[in-house]
Amino acid sequence: MSVLEIRGATPADVGTLLRLIRALAEFEHASDQVMASEADLLRDGFGPVPRFEARLAWLAGQPVGFTLFFATYSTWEGRPGLYLEDIYVEERARRHGVGRALIVDLARLALARDYRRLDLSVLDWNPARAFYERLGIRQNAGWLPYRISGPALAALAKEK
Amino acid sequence: MSVLEIRGATPADVGTLLRLIRALAEFEHASDQVMASEADLLRDGFGPVPRFEARLAWLAGQPVGFTLFFATYSTWEGRPGLYLEDIYVEERARRHGVGRALIVDLARLALARDYRRLDLSVLDWNPARAFYERLGIRQNAGWLPYRISGPALAALAKEK
Repeated sequence: MSVLEIRGATPADVGTLLRLIRALAEFEHASDQVMASEADLLRDGFGPVPRFEARLAWLAGQPVGFTLFFATYSTWEGRPGLYLEDIYVEERARRHGVGRALIVDLARLALARDYRRLDLSVLDWNPARAFYERLGIRQNAGWLPYRISGPALAALAKEK
Repeated sequence: MSVLEIRGATPADVGTLLRLIRALAEFEHASDQVMASEADLLRDGFGPVPRFEARLAWLAGQPVGFTLFFATYSTWEGRPGLYLEDIYVEERARRHGVGRALIVDLARLALARDYRRLDLSVLDWNPARAFYERLGIRQNAGWLPYRISGPALAALAKEK
């Protein structure tokens, strides 16, 4: 049986992280949307003001999956939570429980910090929805995500 | 015409913030879910590790509305964004453009920081959806929010 280990990513892992981020975007049919560079990940994950944290899953000594997340805040709970921005396991490493272990790892980390929630977003066609449901993660029914970015955000900032 | 001002909240404003948070939760039919105390908001908004930021709208010298938000991270952009957790304007102060001014204020703040997105979530029955659409904020179609919290999160953390 292969040994599975999950560890916090280090600056030496940014190349691996970017490779996995791109693989996830490709799976989401959005690989043309990845503008991030290794320099961005180095600055924003491991600089003086960390903007995210990342954990890598190693199977038989190879990095095969990751989570990337940041803290949220709930005004109902009066406590932070975690938002899982990205989770991905390489195809060759699937069916070894890597994804499940990555999620359990995050749940432990949230509890250890006395955080109260773990949130994430899933594309409606993604079979991972069944995987999340099996772990007790439920659709937050009734809530709709909204976004503004790019030129529309710049135009909004210029309004009187 | 009344003077409208938007300023960053200070520790002296936590009582006002909690009042507005509760008013928003009541509007969302969730007032029983607000566990946060003034002590929570003081620690998490104004302590050594700020977990959120808040801005207050003052109309004719009275605080009548607020935004509460935190930074996110986009692995596509390789830059942070803002997540608007709460926005609320008291009923007596509506139709003065306070909500619009609060959103434009956040868009400016995002741009000034070179952040690339403003995200928020809306309940499907909330008439504010039309308000967001008018400002160019669009439903992030195809994405579904998932969450785990409370006993389910604790159980997940205990799995092998």
